[in-house]
Amino acid sequence: MKAERVETVAAIRARVARARGRGKTVALVPTMGALHTGHGELIRRARSEADFVVVSVFVNPIQFNSAEDFELYPRTLETDIDFCGRFGADAVFAPSAREMYPEPQLAFVEVSSLGDSFCGEFRPGHFRGVATVVAKLLNIVQPDRAYFGEKDAQQLAVIRRMVADLNLPIAIIPVATVREPDGLAMSSRNARLKPEDRAAAPLIYEALQAAARAVAEGGAPEKAKRAGMEVLARDPRFQVEYFECADPATMKIAERISGPVLILAAVWLGGVRLIDNILCGQHRSN
Amino acid sequence: MKAERVETVAAIRARVARARGRGKTVALVPTMGALHTGHGELIRRARSEADFVVVSVFVNPIQFNSAEDFELYPRTLETDIDFCGRFGADAVFAPSAREMYPEPQLAFVEVSSLGDSFCGEFRPGHFRGVATVVAKLLNIVQPDRAYFGEKDAQQLAVIRRMVADLNLPIAIIPVATVREPDGLAMSSRNARLKPEDRAAAPLIYEALQAAARAVAEGGAPEKAKRAGMEVLARDPRFQVEYFECADPATMKIAERISGPVLILAAVWLGGVRLIDNILCGQHRSN
Repeated sequence: MKAERVETVAAIRARVARARGRGKTVALVPTMGALHTGHGELIRRARSEADFVVVSVFVNPIQFNSAEDFELYPRTLETDIDFCGRFGADAVFAPSAREMYPEPQLAFVEVSSLGDSFCGEFRPGHFRGVATVVAKLLNIVQPDRAYFGEKDAQQLAVIRRMVADLNLPIAIIPVATVREPDGLAMSSRNARLKPEDRAAAPLIYEALQAAARAVAEGGAPEKAKRAGMEVLARDPRFQVEYFECADPATMKIAERISGPVLILAAVWLGGVRLIDNILCGQHRSN
Repeated sequence: MKAERVETVAAIRARVARARGRGKTVALVPTMGALHTGHGELIRRARSEADFVVVSVFVNPIQFNSAEDFELYPRTLETDIDFCGRFGADAVFAPSAREMYPEPQLAFVEVSSLGDSFCGEFRPGHFRGVATVVAKLLNIVQPDRAYFGEKDAQQLAVIRRMVADLNLPIAIIPVATVREPDGLAMSSRNARLKPEDRAAAPLIYEALQAAARAVAEGGAPEKAKRAGMEVLARDPRFQVEYFECADPATMKIAERISGPVLILAAVWLGGVRLIDNILCGQHRSN
């Protein structure tokens, strides 16, 4: 099956209205394209839980802090549309920047505190841009359900809180991170790694697992962090931006372990920024 | 006819879903209660243009900068419900603060630049609170149309821009300011004026009219402002917070007259803050 390519807000709304008119439920999978098996898993889940599946492909300029990073972000629309069709999507909404931002954007959604730490600290305004474009996409498509990968854990927390706080009548469905056989989390950025860096990249997941073991053994957050950092220190090419244990609901650094812990890492490797995370220690003591 | 009182998000959504199921169109009139003929006009317009009319009555804590102003804001819910019924509303959505904000609000809608001048300058965070609660109400009720008074001109500009920028599929309908026979713009705050201040209050509209005459005669914004300020200077009880000519689309102070001009005033009178405005000079020269 081929997914239909739709480029305007009016046209995607018309497609969704037609599906609604036939009593269909609607799912949205927001992406920035350069689709890989991780996205495939999001589309597959959406396909199994809704009647009409829209994948949006939009490299959102207002969430990049660096013009270079925006320019370098891979764009593979024709391949992406084929990919969406293979996974059963009905429509690919691929608007231009002008269609999404016909006027300078003045209205922004800010999710305070959740978006300030971790990636937000190193990418100022990033989560404001993410929350704003996701609000726009949710308002354009008005799906019953929208699917997001757990790899972008902080993004997921920001979007969940936005949807709850702004009373959007949409279920946000988290989907587990898909990994390469060697453990590296799938990401559109992996394609930018040089072969020797790609070979070393699974060390990030090894470090997260070492930290998770420390938590499972009753270690404090500081001990878990040290265990992870020791793994990454084995290879001097890794530059750590952050490696922390956090409360997954508040995205604040965990002072002690009580309930679920999200271990998050962002590292630079050969000029490419990679992020990953593990949720662990889920046994609540209270 | 009596309007039905509805207190929870789930219940108002159920009422709206039932109306939608019968093919009805839906209108929302957001208010903070203490309803007067100005609100009546909003409800009347909504009634004539939609099948199912919801009036929300919610004194929104996050748009007040002063706890005292929030406490003093008049609350007359029983009377308001009767009033809504007389004007033909089907439902009054009157949630508690806990229903609207079950958790501390972290997600906010900010409309940059439009909300920074005039009232925004003197009431920091006010329009962020307004935009956020209106976004919530629009997402809860999901009306086809929502009605706002032109008396709150800057609020109207902020909400229009929010709806456009966030792609909310809702028509925002502005309704002309309703005035007392002596010219005073209707406002819930008028009830807080002492009798002698109430008698003097129409001077605000006189001042706006004097400024509008200056614009009509080809005067520059500075001249129009001076004409208005001279009127207000006749009575020393009036303390002017701002009196300006602005571009109604950008809410920036007009440097010269080219197209429509919004003349805006905020004054203090006997401890009560009153606002009013006139739109004039609509003949574009280009």
